[in-house]
Amino acid sequence: MLKITGIAASAGVAIAPAFKLEHPDYTVKQQHAKDSSAELQRFEEALAASVQELEAIKERTQQELGAKKAEIFESHLLILSDPELLTPVRDKIANELVTAEFALDETAKQFISMFENMKSAYLRERAADMRDVTKRVLTHLLGVKYVNPAEINTEVIVVAEDLTPSDTAQLNRQFVKGFTTNIGGRTSHSAIMARSLEIPAVVGTKDVLSQIESGDLLIVDGLDGEVIINPAPELVAEYQAKRDRHLRQIEEWKKLRDLPTVSRDGVHVELAANIGTPNDVAGVLENGGEGVGLYRTEFLYMGRTELPSEDVQFQAYKTVLEKMEGKPVVVRTLDIGGDKELPYLDLPKEMNPFLGFRAVRLCLDRQDIFRTQLRALLRASVYGNLRIMFPMIATLDEFRQAKALLEEEKAKLVGEGTAVSDSIQLGIMVEIPSTAVLADQFAQEVDFFSIGTNDLIQYTMAADRMNERVSYLYQPYNPAILRLVKMVIDAAHKEGRWVGMCGEMAGDATAIPLLLGLGLDEFSMSATSILPARSQISKLSKAEMEKLAAEALQKRTAQEVVELVQAIKQ
Amino acid sequence: MLKITGIAASAGVAIAPAFKLEHPDYTVKQQHAKDSSAELQRFEEALAASVQELEAIKERTQQELGAKKAEIFESHLLILSDPELLTPVRDKIANELVTAEFALDETAKQFISMFENMKSAYLRERAADMRDVTKRVLTHLLGVKYVNPAEINTEVIVVAEDLTPSDTAQLNRQFVKGFTTNIGGRTSHSAIMARSLEIPAVVGTKDVLSQIESGDLLIVDGLDGEVIINPAPELVAEYQAKRDRHLRQIEEWKKLRDLPTVSRDGVHVELAANIGTPNDVAGVLENGGEGVGLYRTEFLYMGRTELPSEDVQFQAYKTVLEKMEGKPVVVRTLDIGGDKELPYLDLPKEMNPFLGFRAVRLCLDRQDIFRTQLRALLRASVYGNLRIMFPMIATLDEFRQAKALLEEEKAKLVGEGTAVSDSIQLGIMVEIPSTAVLADQFAQEVDFFSIGTNDLIQYTMAADRMNERVSYLYQPYNPAILRLVKMVIDAAHKEGRWVGMCGEMAGDATAIPLLLGLGLDEFSMSATSILPARSQISKLSKAEMEKLAAEALQKRTAQEVVELVQAIKQ
Repeated sequence: MLKITGIAASAGVAIAPAFKLEHPDYTVKQQHAKDSSAELQRFEEALAASVQELEAIKERTQQELGAKKAEIFESHLLILSDPELLTPVRDKIANELVTAEFALDETAKQFISMFENMKSAYLRERAADMRDVTKRVLTHLLGVKYVNPAEINTEVIVVAEDLTPSDTAQLNRQFVKGFTTNIGGRTSHSAIMARSLEIPAVVGTKDVLSQIESGDLLIVDGLDGEVIINPAPELVAEYQAKRDRHLRQIEEWKKLRDLPTVSRDGVHVELAANIGTPNDVAGVLENGGEGVGLYRTEFLYMGRTELPSEDVQFQAYKTVLEKMEGKPVVVRTLDIGGDKELPYLDLPKEMNPFLGFRAVRLCLDRQDIFRTQLRALLRASVYGNLRIMFPMIATLDEFRQAKALLEEEKAKLVGEGTAVSDSIQLGIMVEIPSTAVLADQFAQEVDFFSIGTNDLIQYTMAADRMNERVSYLYQPYNPAILRLVKMVIDAAHKEGRWVGMCGEMAGDATAIPLLLGLGLDEFSMSATSILPARSQISKLSKAEMEKLAAEALQKRTAQEVVELVQAIKQ
Repeated sequence: MLKITGIAASAGVAIAPAFKLEHPDYTVKQQHAKDSSAELQRFEEALAASVQELEAIKERTQQELGAKKAEIFESHLLILSDPELLTPVRDKIANELVTAEFALDETAKQFISMFENMKSAYLRERAADMRDVTKRVLTHLLGVKYVNPAEINTEVIVVAEDLTPSDTAQLNRQFVKGFTTNIGGRTSHSAIMARSLEIPAVVGTKDVLSQIESGDLLIVDGLDGEVIINPAPELVAEYQAKRDRHLRQIEEWKKLRDLPTVSRDGVHVELAANIGTPNDVAGVLENGGEGVGLYRTEFLYMGRTELPSEDVQFQAYKTVLEKMEGKPVVVRTLDIGGDKELPYLDLPKEMNPFLGFRAVRLCLDRQDIFRTQLRALLRASVYGNLRIMFPMIATLDEFRQAKALLEEEKAKLVGEGTAVSDSIQLGIMVEIPSTAVLADQFAQEVDFFSIGTNDLIQYTMAADRMNERVSYLYQPYNPAILRLVKMVIDAAHKEGRWVGMCGEMAGDATAIPLLLGLGLDEFSMSATSILPARSQISKLSKAEMEKLAAEALQKRTAQEVVELVQAIKQ
């Protein structure tokens, strides 16, 4: 028996024999060809076969996981029809007497290296797509054998160096009981897919692949991030029990789907979901979300060559509002800039983009962009319960300016005879320390706050959360963060306003008791966290958590706070 | 009469005829040469003449303005002896049959463009030096006429597009009564030099050069940032009176040099100075500084090819402590990283350097660097009143780690028989919001705080203060900033600790009444601001300023706070 620890990427326990999914050697060995028209023919055939495969995978993903998850294969298909890639490959084959595989490999490498050197995280990710697609075509050209994960037809646990998007999409839930990989983290693509598929996964084990032979009996514990190889029968029994407890818990959670979120001592809070596109609404409803606490509108602006029109936006907002059937939907206005770039806006490079010209700062300057979004939102407002929220507000002046623009557009629409709701709540993200510190003044002018912990933590600790060298300072449980959260909640309640939270912290099991105790009204999180959070809150007494939070505020370090929370029985 | 407004860069009023200092055309027109040895000869002669000029300028600067201000000419001389520049020029002349001026210009342009594209602000500034030096040599090679500012021998006001470091250094205070330029800001090189020379200056006027003819009568009002061209006699009389009032005020200020800083109602606060090198101590004492509130040790590490040794550091710290004769000296440990790079440390590029691996974060990781500095400080501690301060402390864990390293080095030194003071106060910079919010907990473990407003403001507002697009958010008077300052001061006083401030805000006339009212104990500023600040404070009642500050804390915007302060009579 050997136990390997990794990162718990998707909850649950799986017990099954190992199936090693290893990618063949894609090295191109033959460079020179004699017959360019034969090579061209080979290339077109491999291309056609790859397109056919991708169409099938896309279809299957769409059915099993929804349209959003299938989008990635749409982009793979786009790559395979992109003349920017295909023309140089075909030219190379036609003019240089090289093999199709050589021409493809060389050309793709150039694109991959170009994408990898881009500053934009979004474009860097395109390198992974290009690599995935190239491998698919090379499989055909090189005639290498690659076990398609879709062909697995006995119960197994997949073991791999890493899983590509295509790999994960082809895993058949009926047979693949779990997976474990050498690389990856909680937010890597494979981890996100595992959670969507609801199969246990442990990633980032570093060397699980070399420790395991196909056929070894494995336990993948996605609750605690452990992989056990060839366990003794008693251990298997123990983990079967653990698995069953977890499955029973999931069943318990499902019963909470249509119930309100109420603490043990009868206090109601709202559990909402963060979404990125109208397609995500189905997941929110399935998981019993009481609203949308954060609709990130950036996706509407991304993956395009120009700004989305007012009508394109209107349709998206209307769809979300209608699907949510009167439940509150908090739409955050455009939060672009920082690490999120829009190439077509051609913004200047900044030395410190996280402290730069982004979100509402940009919108107040580029009023054309902002007014279009505001008009689309106002027009959509009659289709549901719309709340509008401005991101990155640092001063009351900014809020007042943004509000004035909204009022102007509203007056124009009303003047034009367009129906606009009269009960749109207007709030701000609290993600900049100045706004948290001055929350009592803001509370007299806004309808609600939503605390964006991801940014609030990074500014309060002056540490870029993407920078590994200072990631130890990204401390959600630091008493300073809790104090700022308290300032915001107390200030809001004094003026009769409500406070939500839409950062990662809101769905975190260690943070929830503290946030309940601090008086948070709305918790917005990824849809799949809602039912566990509802269950957790139902077992907590708000009165007791108030005492816990008061104690936490007097602690000196994040570690002391974590120990305090861990000491309570939940 | 015409009035032009600009940036008040150096206080005082000057009235004199205009002298336009215009640089000649340095365009190199002749590329081809016939006799390379004659060209080489011309180059060497121009070089020698330039070196001779620079030696003279350096000598004069050293005498009039001190060694630190003369350092820039030392670097110019270094450029003129650097084989990296000279060898390619000489090779070009010898091998390509080009004129000396062409060879120099081409080579220098390459260096300038290389420096300008560097990420480091320090290296980018080297481009300006290179340009200045190249022009000097070109003057000789092109035989253009350039009026050396040193040759001015009647009372004038110099009018220019901009002034280079060499220009400014050659201004003779006896004749140059003031200057005004089209470009530049309060912290540009020419502005800093003007304040050192104590001559009135208005910079950043945008078009003063085109509006003025040599000989026009000018008033340069460096108090309010105005330039008046050909004023009527009554206006001249008015400004003569203003000038005299200012001169009398300076005399008044000088009388305060050896007095303590006491408010109208008898409360003593300490006015200290920020320094960068031991050479700055003379200015601190001349301006009646009661201590050094911030000794930035970065300069010891800059302009070198390797880390400074323990002994080099020891000598610098000892010199400052001895010269300050028992007055407190707060030494900040190495604050490198962010925008301040040390090429020889070879740190990785960061996406957001201001939120990155810098200052104490780096020192706790690179303990070799940190321990060397701590040992040098401990050894120097017996030569005066040393206080040690750690920069960029975000958590108590970091402070505890840094303190533990100091204790370890102290124990080692004592074990080796080296004398170490037993009364070194140990404090931290409060420049990260988390530390301000948690100041009550920190106050139980540190001896003092020094609030670093430059960084505290940029993190609290989430706005890079170097980024022009968000500079409107750099708001020292934002009520949120004042509240954080108050939290720190109240927390410290409760534990019997003192609080200083060493950001730009501490010497700002609008901020001083508020800071006095909030209870700040020590104000550390540039030496030349000390006497005006002492005079200002002597006219303020601390009790009244407490009421003012309390009111400011309840304002909603920075503008409201400024209006509140401006409404009081000072």
